[in-house]
Amino acid sequence: MSTAGQVIKCKAAVAWESGKPLSIEEVEVAPPQKNEVRIKILFTSLCHTDVYFWDAKGQNPMFPRILGHEAGGIVESVGEGVTDLKVGDHVLPIFTGECKECAHCLSEESNMCDLLRINTDRGEMIHDGKSRFSINGKPIYHFLGTSTFSEYTVVHVGQVAKINPEAPLDKVCVLSCGMSTGFGATVNVAKPKKGQSVAIFGLGAVGLAAAEGARVSGASRIIGVDLNPSRFEQAKKFGVTEFVNPKDHDKPVQEVIAEMTGGGVDRSVECTGSIQAMISAFECVHDGWGVAVLVGVPNKDDAFKTHPVNLLNERTLKGTFFGNYKPRTDIPAVVEKYMNKELELDKFITHSVPFSEINKAFELMLAGEGLRCMIRMDA
Amino acid sequence: MSTAGQVIKCKAAVAWESGKPLSIEEVEVAPPQKNEVRIKILFTSLCHTDVYFWDAKGQNPMFPRILGHEAGGIVESVGEGVTDLKVGDHVLPIFTGECKECAHCLSEESNMCDLLRINTDRGEMIHDGKSRFSINGKPIYHFLGTSTFSEYTVVHVGQVAKINPEAPLDKVCVLSCGMSTGFGATVNVAKPKKGQSVAIFGLGAVGLAAAEGARVSGASRIIGVDLNPSRFEQAKKFGVTEFVNPKDHDKPVQEVIAEMTGGGVDRSVECTGSIQAMISAFECVHDGWGVAVLVGVPNKDDAFKTHPVNLLNERTLKGTFFGNYKPRTDIPAVVEKYMNKELELDKFITHSVPFSEINKAFELMLAGEGLRCMIRMDA
Ligand SMILES: NC(=O)c1ccc[n+]([C@@H]2O[C@H](COP(=O)([O-])OP(=O)(O)OC[C@H]3O[C@@H](n4cnc5c(N)ncnc54)[C@H](O)[C@@H]3O)[C@@H](O)[C@H]2O)c1
Ligand SMILES: NC(=O)c1ccc[n+]([C@@H]2O[C@H](COP(=O)([O-])OP(=O)(O)OC[C@H]3O[C@@H](n4cnc5c(N)ncnc54)[C@H](O)[C@@H]3O)[C@@H](O)[C@H]2O)c1
Ligand SMILES: [Zn+2]
Ligand SMILES: [Zn+2]
Ligand SMILES: [Zn+2]
Ligand SMILES: [Zn+2]
Repeated sequence: MSTAGQVIKCKAAVAWESGKPLSIEEVEVAPPQKNEVRIKILFTSLCHTDVYFWDAKGQNPMFPRILGHEAGGIVESVGEGVTDLKVGDHVLPIFTGECKECAHCLSEESNMCDLLRINTDRGEMIHDGKSRFSINGKPIYHFLGTSTFSEYTVVHVGQVAKINPEAPLDKVCVLSCGMSTGFGATVNVAKPKKGQSVAIFGLGAVGLAAAEGARVSGASRIIGVDLNPSRFEQAKKFGVTEFVNPKDHDKPVQEVIAEMTGGGVDRSVECTGSIQAMISAFECVHDGWGVAVLVGVPNKDDAFKTHPVNLLNERTLKGTFFGNYKPRTDIPAVVEKYMNKELELDKFITHSVPFSEINKAFELMLAGEGLRCMIRMDA
Repeated sequence: MSTAGQVIKCKAAVAWESGKPLSIEEVEVAPPQKNEVRIKILFTSLCHTDVYFWDAKGQNPMFPRILGHEAGGIVESVGEGVTDLKVGDHVLPIFTGECKECAHCLSEESNMCDLLRINTDRGEMIHDGKSRFSINGKPIYHFLGTSTFSEYTVVHVGQVAKINPEAPLDKVCVLSCGMSTGFGATVNVAKPKKGQSVAIFGLGAVGLAAAEGARVSGASRIIGVDLNPSRFEQAKKFGVTEFVNPKDHDKPVQEVIAEMTGGGVDRSVECTGSIQAMISAFECVHDGWGVAVLVGVPNKDDAFKTHPVNLLNERTLKGTFFGNYKPRTDIPAVVEKYMNKELELDKFITHSVPFSEINKAFELMLAGEGLRCMIRMDA
């Protein structure tokens, strides 16, 4: 029996207030409207951004809300005007979209869609400014347009990547955010040449995905930098060949790296969110040709500061968002890379829990254990 | 009668002390040693850098010295081991060199040769740490390895570009420094695509050469930014289509430019040396794809400062030195661009004086009149 056009009652993990455990509730999910699709989520994983907005320190609190933005699922029904997707398509919902019409979408270089660029403050759908989720008629806010901590969710068609139906959703799920961000930062933006040296600042999930990008690019040396020494053992599995802990040195880490490499690394990728790491990541690249790429999300009041001669000596500084991937155009090909064994994802998935135990995923992340915890919706 | 191997007596303009007019003296020029050539200078032009080191404010004073680094001449004789150049070759001496052996010279991306990179503090030849210039046996310091304010000078072979002998030296002379720096900053580093918008900060000779690069690249809009309104009339001849004087606005010039262009220019090139202009030039490029290139030489204590989100929004910031040209490998082809009328140089040469009146060239530059004053050695 088709559920298209019907309100669906299903389970969702609702965040009622900041920092309190999510509670699994029965919610009503309205049918998709114009340019929207309703997706049955099969797998979703937890990313730091979910924790930031759950914790809501320094963020606009918006509750009750259904969090979640790394996921894989199947299209249940489509709204008016949707031609690119049909019932049964395997998809990844993505926290940032691609309208295919604005100046950014038409530019080869940008993925920062004017219409569907990430918006952490929006809690409703663009079409009518309303939520598709409710409990007893009371609306529950959306998160990043994805809200994947629900058995069913409604997403704008511009935020949905249609992928190979043979791809295992419990693996490629992690490509909807962190892994694509780190991997793309290296392969699309830093672009190390075969044999070059790469420094990765921050060995969390995003940094290790950046390291995976360096490995795939044939980097000769991958230098991992982290303040937390426990990150190092794990990083070896990701091809990181050398480690530097800034705390072990009494000079700036950029000088340590310059000494290790005869003047600096060829490429660096910053995945920490620390302004000090951003400056070090820039200043540790070689003059003449070095390229530094910033990925981490800084604090509101941070200032990036360097002597301009560091730039004049022919260094390049760039930032990236979602690894410069256009979600609909590019992510299907990244999934194919995984299918062709050019890119490893399994090593990022260190834990797995049934949906009923979603709060365990939060506990693991808060304890800094593992990289990604896969949440199984059917379990 | 050949002068090879002999000391040559000739006229040179000697700077005896900071800020005092140069005096034309008879100097002795020793023969070129290993990997050196002696060049008969036919034309030389005055660049700001000469004035800075003559003025010696904030620079290490080094006197007596023979200044000069934009020039064209003919090889008079060659030292031991010189195979790339022979007597009679038409050449441009260049203030920064290319050894063709170091990591920078072997890199496709860098022109910052380890051996022969610009060194403003060196007053002698690398080979033996001695000067080739003397008056009554007393050495006179070299400047930038070029010292072109002399009828004859000795230069390391790595700092000499061999050019088409049909090229008029009184025109292509200006390619040895400022024009290549500005033109290359646009065409080699900012690389605007046809139809894109470009902002040029600073409409001095370097900035106008950057504008010439934008014109040649087919830019749709060239927005000139300068604090000095008298720069604007001249800039029109260089294809600058719009003008902004930061003093005419009560908001930051980057905001003015963003409004003029629907979010920012596609490319910007900073040619002022002002740290405020460097920051504005970066912040005025469009998110998603904008590229800003810094050319101006800052003060020692300047700090480049911006919010890191300006970078994360996919802007690129780069610096360049000598327009990223490798002096020996690339400059001959830039001379050919002039010969093929792809690049205009004549409009940069606004004045001309005989060598005996070289101090007039200083007066013109100090008064901010014109762009380049050509100094004719034979006159
Ligand atoms: N730009 C994007 O599109 C995008 C997408 C996802 C995540 N992010 C950002 O990427 C960053 C990394 O995400 P993650 O999930 O891997 O985080 P994480 O917290 O798991 O890892 C960050 C690591 O950086 C280390 N670190 C912190 N300060 C450091 C310093 N000064 N020097 C060296 N190491 C330092 C920490 O010890 C930690 O191991 C975050 O800022 C996140 O917000 C950006
Ligand atoms: N990187 C290199 O290889 C290289 C080579 C040659 C020259 N340079 C540098 O390039 C810069 C320009 O050289 P030039 O000979 O054209 O100098 P110039 O003095 O003739 O021109 C500079 C112009 O910038 C304008 N200006 C100053 N501050 C400004 C501000 N805040 N906003 C807007 N405009 C401002 C001035 O009014 C002036 O018209 C200098 O800093 C010079 O040292 C660099
Ligand atoms: Zn768009
Ligand atoms: Zn995420
Ligand atoms: Zn070299
Ligand atoms: Zn110069």
